[in-house]
Amino acid sequence: MISKIVVKDARFPLTGGAGSDAIHQNPVYSYTVACLYDDKGNCGTGLAFTLGAGNELVCAAARFYGEKLVGKELTEVMASFGDWFKQRSDEQQFRWLGPHKGVVHLALAAVTNACYDLWAKQQQVPLWKLLLDLTPEQVVNTLDLSYLEEVLPREEAVRMLTEMQASRASREGVLRTGYAAYDTSAGWFNYSDDQLEANCKRALDNGFRALKLKVGAKDPDTDIRRAHIVRNTVGDEIKVMVDANQQWNLPQAIAIGKKLAAINPYWIEEPTHPDDILAHKTLADALNPVKLALGEHVPNKVIFKNYLQTGSAGFIQVDAVRVGGVSEFITVSLLCKKFGVPVVPHVGDMGQLHQHLVLFNHIGMGHEALFLEHIPHLRKHFVHPALITDGFYKTPETPGSSCDLLSLNTFPG
Amino acid sequence: MISKIVVKDARFPLTGGAGSDAIHQNPVYSYTVACLYDDKGNCGTGLAFTLGAGNELVCAAARFYGEKLVGKELTEVMASFGDWFKQRSDEQQFRWLGPHKGVVHLALAAVTNACYDLWAKQQQVPLWKLLLDLTPEQVVNTLDLSYLEEVLPREEAVRMLTEMQASRASREGVLRTGYAAYDTSAGWFNYSDDQLEANCKRALDNGFRALKLKVGAKDPDTDIRRAHIVRNTVGDEIKVMVDANQQWNLPQAIAIGKKLAAINPYWIEEPTHPDDILAHKTLADALNPVKLALGEHVPNKVIFKNYLQTGSAGFIQVDAVRVGGVSEFITVSLLCKKFGVPVVPHVGDMGQLHQHLVLFNHIGMGHEALFLEHIPHLRKHFVHPALITDGFYKTPETPGSSCDLLSLNTFPG
Repeated sequence: MISKIVVKDARFPLTGGAGSDAIHQNPVYSYTVACLYDDKGNCGTGLAFTLGAGNELVCAAARFYGEKLVGKELTEVMASFGDWFKQRSDEQQFRWLGPHKGVVHLALAAVTNACYDLWAKQQQVPLWKLLLDLTPEQVVNTLDLSYLEEVLPREEAVRMLTEMQASRASREGVLRTGYAAYDTSAGWFNYSDDQLEANCKRALDNGFRALKLKVGAKDPDTDIRRAHIVRNTVGDEIKVMVDANQQWNLPQAIAIGKKLAAINPYWIEEPTHPDDILAHKTLADALNPVKLALGEHVPNKVIFKNYLQTGSAGFIQVDAVRVGGVSEFITVSLLCKKFGVPVVPHVGDMGQLHQHLVLFNHIGMGHEALFLEHIPHLRKHFVHPALITDGFYKTPETPGSSCDLLSLNTFPG
Repeated sequence: MISKIVVKDARFPLTGGAGSDAIHQNPVYSYTVACLYDDKGNCGTGLAFTLGAGNELVCAAARFYGEKLVGKELTEVMASFGDWFKQRSDEQQFRWLGPHKGVVHLALAAVTNACYDLWAKQQQVPLWKLLLDLTPEQVVNTLDLSYLEEVLPREEAVRMLTEMQASRASREGVLRTGYAAYDTSAGWFNYSDDQLEANCKRALDNGFRALKLKVGAKDPDTDIRRAHIVRNTVGDEIKVMVDANQQWNLPQAIAIGKKLAAINPYWIEEPTHPDDILAHKTLADALNPVKLALGEHVPNKVIFKNYLQTGSAGFIQVDAVRVGGVSEFITVSLLCKKFGVPVVPHVGDMGQLHQHLVLFNHIGMGHEALFLEHIPHLRKHFVHPALITDGFYKTPETPGSSCDLLSLNTFPG
C-alpha cells in the first residue's frame, strides 16, 4: 500500500557555459522529485525536469496528484494505469491549467514516473525488464489512448506489441552490447570555438560516433562557422546534429537550414516554435533531404500525433520528464512506430530513465536502436549514474528506473 | 512610476449546476487578480481565469512577472509593450514551463491585463477608447508578432489597421446601440430538461437572439434530445450554439456532429481536444456546412495561426484571460482578420474586459460585430458589472477595463 508521497525541489546550478543554448543562456538543471513510499519500506522516485525558476510550481502540482495515490495498492493502480492517468490528467479544475501541458503535466510526469519506479523496485527488477515482462495487454492497460482513436485504437496497439514478440531474441543483443550514446555536451552555445574543437576531439576519444552542436546565433555566420569547425574536426563518418532550440522563425529556419546542409547534419533540431506544426511541415519540405528532429518541448500525445500526421519529423524526441511520464512516453513511441518514425528521446533526466525506455522501445516495440542522448553534468548527483563506456550506455541492472538522487534531504519540500 | 504589484487569489463557488459542462462538472470560477499600483494612487487590475484548484500556482507565477514592472514608467513600457511581452514570455528559466502556455502564460495574461487597465485609468478613458485612440504603429508596438513572420509581418499589421481608419465612422454606431450579447447560462450541462426549456424562454424574454447548449453527454441521444428541446423552444430565427467542451474524440465528433446538424446549430464548439489541429480540419470537412468554433483552450498565437492556416475554424474564440492578455488577443484578432475568420471571444472574464476588446476589433480592425458571450454568475462581484439590456452590452464609460472586483481584501495573497 502506498503510505505517503513527498515532493522535493532539487536544483543543480551549472558552470562554465554547460547547458547553454540559443534560448536558455543560464539554465539551472532542476528536478521535481516525487518520492512515493509504500508500507514495505520501498521508495519510488519520479522526476520532472525544469530549468530552475518555477520548479516550485511543478512541485506543488505534483503534491496535488500524488496525494490521490495514498492508501492505494500500487499493483492495482498499475493494472489499469491508463485509466488512472486519464482521470488525473482530466482532474476537472486542474485541467483548465493545461490541458495536458505546462506545469500540471510536468507534475503528472513526476508522479507517474514515481509509480513506475516503485513498481519496478517492488518487483526487484530494472524498469526495462519489468516493461518487457508485461504482456501486450498489460502494457496497453498502462496507456491512455484517448484522442488517438482514429490512428491508434486499443486493439491495434495490442497487435503491434504482440507482433513484435516472436522476433524479440533478435533484438536482445543490445542488452549485452549496450545502447549507443551521442554526446550533447561537446557543443553548448556559450563554449568558445577552441573549447568546441577540443570537446569534439574528446568526444571521439571517448568513443562517441555522434554529437551535437548548439546553433541559433544572432549572426547566422557564427552557426555556419562553428558547424564547419565540428565537421572538420570529427570527419565525415561521425553523425553531427545541430540544435537551434526554437530560436528561428520560419523564414530564418529555411535560410539558415539550407546553409547548414553543407555540413551534412544528421538532423536539425527544434528549428522553430514547438507549437508550430505547419511551419515544421513547410520547413521539412524546404530542407528535404535534411531531416528535422523535434519533441523536447512537445507536451502530449495529441500534438505528437499531429506532427506525425504531417510527416514533418524525421526523428521524434519525446521526453518522459516532459510528457506525462513513462506511460505517455510509451504511447508516443507506439504512435511513432505506427508512423515509421524513430524515437530518439531528449533526456531531461540525463538518460537515467530513458536508458530503460529505449531498451523497451527496441526490444519490445521493434524500434530501431539508434542512439540515446548523453549529458554528463549531473552524474555525481545520482545514486546509480548511467554508465557510458566507449560511447555505449551499459544496461542498468539495479531494480527501478535509476532515478534516485543522492542527498535528497538537503532540498526543501 | 509603478510602485508595487499585489496578486490575489479570488474564488467564487457556483451553485445549482451553473458553469457545468461535459468535462467540468463542478467548476469554481476563480481569478488570478494582478493589482498594479502607480505612485499617483491608481490601481490597475488584470485577470486570468481558472476553475479553482491550482489558481494559487498562477498567482505565484504572476508575482514573478509582476515584480519585473516595479520601478518602471508604465507609459514607457506600453510604448513598446510587444518587446516587454516577448522578454517576459521568453524568461529563459520560466519558459521551460510552457513555452507560452499553461500556468505561466495564464500568469502573464493577468499581469499584461493589469498593465492595460492601469494605462487606461491613468489616461482616464475606458480601454476601448484608449485602444481606438492609438495610431496603427502604436497598436502594433504593443504586440509581439514573433513566429508569425510568414503570415503577418509588422508592416502588414500596420497597413491592415491603417486601411480601416477611413471607414471607422461607419462602424462607430455600435457605441450607441451596444454590442449584441448571447446567453451561455441557458443550457449548462447539469440543468434538467425543464430548467433548460424555462431558461430558453427567459433568454428570449430578456432579448437574447442567440444562446448556447452544453452537449457531450455519455449517451449522445441525450444531446440530440436536448438540442431539439432548445430549437423547438426558441424557434428557427434564434441562433443556437452547441458546445462539447472537448468531450468527443474524432470519430464521435463526426457521428454526433452529423446528428446535431438537424437542429441547424450556428456552430459546434470545442468538439474535441484543443491541441488537435488536424482532427478539427478533418471534422470541419466532414460536417461542412456546419461550422466549428474553437479557441477557449488555445493558449497562444502560434497555435491559432495553425488553426487558421488549416481553415478548420469558422469562429475563433480567443480569450484574453487565457492567451497572454490584451496584447496577444489583439495579435490573434489581427491574424483572424487576415484569414477572414470572425472573433467571438470566450469570456473567462465574464465579458468585463472583452466588451472593450470587441469594440476595438469592430471599429478599429474592421471585424464584423457579431455578438459577445454573456455569463451572469459573477456580476455581483465586480465594481462595474457589464450592463446587458435587451440582449446588448451597454458601452462601458468608466476609465479602465472594467475588471475591478469588490471585496478584494477578503482574498489571500
